[in-house]
Amino acid sequence: MLHNRNLQVVLARYPEGQPREDDFRLVEGPIPSPGPGQFLVRTLYLSLDPWIWLRMKPVAEYRRWSPRNKVLGLGEVMHGAVVGEVVESRHPDFKVGDLIESKLGWQRYALSDGAGDRLNNADGLTRIAPDLGPASAWLGPLGRTGMTAYFGLMKVCQPKPGETVVVSSAAGATGMVVGQIAKIKGCRVVGIAGSDAKVDWIVRDLGFDAGINYRTTSDLEAALGRACPGGIDCYYDCTGGPIADAVLPLLNDRARWAVVGVIAEYDRPIGDSLGRRPYTMLLARRARMEGFVVHDWAREHPAAIREIAQWMREGRFKNREYITDGLENAPRAFVGMLQGDNIGKNLIRVSSQSGAA
Amino acid sequence: MLHNRNLQVVLARYPEGQPREDDFRLVEGPIPSPGPGQFLVRTLYLSLDPWIWLRMKPVAEYRRWSPRNKVLGLGEVMHGAVVGEVVESRHPDFKVGDLIESKLGWQRYALSDGAGDRLNNADGLTRIAPDLGPASAWLGPLGRTGMTAYFGLMKVCQPKPGETVVVSSAAGATGMVVGQIAKIKGCRVVGIAGSDAKVDWIVRDLGFDAGINYRTTSDLEAALGRACPGGIDCYYDCTGGPIADAVLPLLNDRARWAVVGVIAEYDRPIGDSLGRRPYTMLLARRARMEGFVVHDWAREHPAAIREIAQWMREGRFKNREYITDGLENAPRAFVGMLQGDNIGKNLIRVSSQSGAA
Repeated sequence: MLHNRNLQVVLARYPEGQPREDDFRLVEGPIPSPGPGQFLVRTLYLSLDPWIWLRMKPVAEYRRWSPRNKVLGLGEVMHGAVVGEVVESRHPDFKVGDLIESKLGWQRYALSDGAGDRLNNADGLTRIAPDLGPASAWLGPLGRTGMTAYFGLMKVCQPKPGETVVVSSAAGATGMVVGQIAKIKGCRVVGIAGSDAKVDWIVRDLGFDAGINYRTTSDLEAALGRACPGGIDCYYDCTGGPIADAVLPLLNDRARWAVVGVIAEYDRPIGDSLGRRPYTMLLARRARMEGFVVHDWAREHPAAIREIAQWMREGRFKNREYITDGLENAPRAFVGMLQGDNIGKNLIRVSSQSGAA
Repeated sequence: MLHNRNLQVVLARYPEGQPREDDFRLVEGPIPSPGPGQFLVRTLYLSLDPWIWLRMKPVAEYRRWSPRNKVLGLGEVMHGAVVGEVVESRHPDFKVGDLIESKLGWQRYALSDGAGDRLNNADGLTRIAPDLGPASAWLGPLGRTGMTAYFGLMKVCQPKPGETVVVSSAAGATGMVVGQIAKIKGCRVVGIAGSDAKVDWIVRDLGFDAGINYRTTSDLEAALGRACPGGIDCYYDCTGGPIADAVLPLLNDRARWAVVGVIAEYDRPIGDSLGRRPYTMLLARRARMEGFVVHDWAREHPAAIREIAQWMREGRFKNREYITDGLENAPRAFVGMLQGDNIGKNLIRVSSQSGAA
């Protein structure tokens, strides 16, 4: 899997409702050459994440989400984080063979100046330390996904041993990390997921105390009540929407709720999700809700990465990847992910590493 | 206004929707006598507060609000905070003439053991220091109301000079304190209230930068946008409900939202208020919402009371009271308050102080 032409996936049109494969277009072209101070990166893995859907919203609507972020225009390369290998360099600090993680987008080859690629307001470029784990893990537990899980849980939810932690999208890339960390921290962990296979996996393989398939549960609030007989102290919210409605009445006094994803609200105009207002429960329980963005804690990432890598080495923490081969299949995999296809971290294997090629 | 019989207002039935006068009943009886370790309090002022409505919910429903609080049964004395005077004492630490504030309920006379009256899970009894302000102010800016305003604003909202603070029920007992403190702290302050007279008062007399009458504004979100051209950094929320829906889209990055009252949600089953879900905006703005209860900060109350008293003496802070004479008129005044009758702190003058009798 080494290519002598570049391939890019660009936004062909703004989706109506859920993204479809023909909202994307493949574009072939020459491999770019680095100028002075630049280097060329060959993408090894592309990370598929729900937030990418947000970037596919029309400009006016996206502005409700973020007044400042760079907007994805029609015909532009899709935003996304990758792990890649430096294959040509005119930059003093990066040499051929170096591995990096950065938001270089949906393409086989990309240029970087090493200062943090600003394709979509990336918060920088991460040098990969190969001894801590495989390259792909730097898009999962050792990367932004893992950091989102770690800091959203530890800084916003602040779970204490014995407390009940609920996580939604529990078999997804972030949720599986959250639940495992919460178990390591001595909590009772209940996962909400969208299939029996996912529930099975988080309970049997990851050791969650309980799991709920929200798609086959007629009364999610009642099911959560049974799974959380002592109420809910921490909610790590990857979905918003109707699942959040079901969690609200079960909050304990001084509960902490990290808002980390709102995948259930992306199919409506931004901010126009209608359901239960949380105010009465927030007041009655003196509870806290907080939106969380991972790079707020960037300075503490290195220590967290070492901690998770240590747990992985000790076998206390499992990584799972859902890998599709070939960048040309990324649109289909992305559409499938939004419909709940994947268990674990959703990755596209774009190229092989040089040594392994 | 000294009475030789006790008068109590009791709950006659659980209201359907908004409370009405005939949900209450007046009961006359003898004045009780203190036993050993007790003292008799004559009520000077009764505080009417929106939370009392909550206590009028049927038990099963009230349990959704609070699993532990004492519930108000039919025929029981209505809950409420009073300022009163010790008129008879068999307690070593309280002598005739002492002034206290406590949740002794809607009655002319009550017994206390001085340890914090547990009629409705009161968080204690406060001795009034008459030199800091008039007795009635201990139900307003110097009392729980003022502390709710002070700590909700300073600890949850944490406003910085130059930031925009929005407060709802702005001409009410809590809102008027919040807005004035925020002005003292150098913020731009926008108040939302329910009549032109209220808006007039907070802008002209209290110095708010802008006010909005939500009852006559066809598009509250647009009106707020015009009043807050730089967005909203802090929201002190006394209402929840549709006003909260209008505030949400205007939050700035890292906005702080104190949930202090949900008066707009009391007329529905607890927790069943339907409207905009906040999750997408909380995440997009990395914003925080937090339910707040005043006695969480009880140890810091004395310093805050001295600070507000100082502002009152210096004329930087105005108190306003909406006083109705006679405990027998409390039901009507309470019903009127929930319909928005009052400007300022809603009080019932129950008896005169001995010296002034």
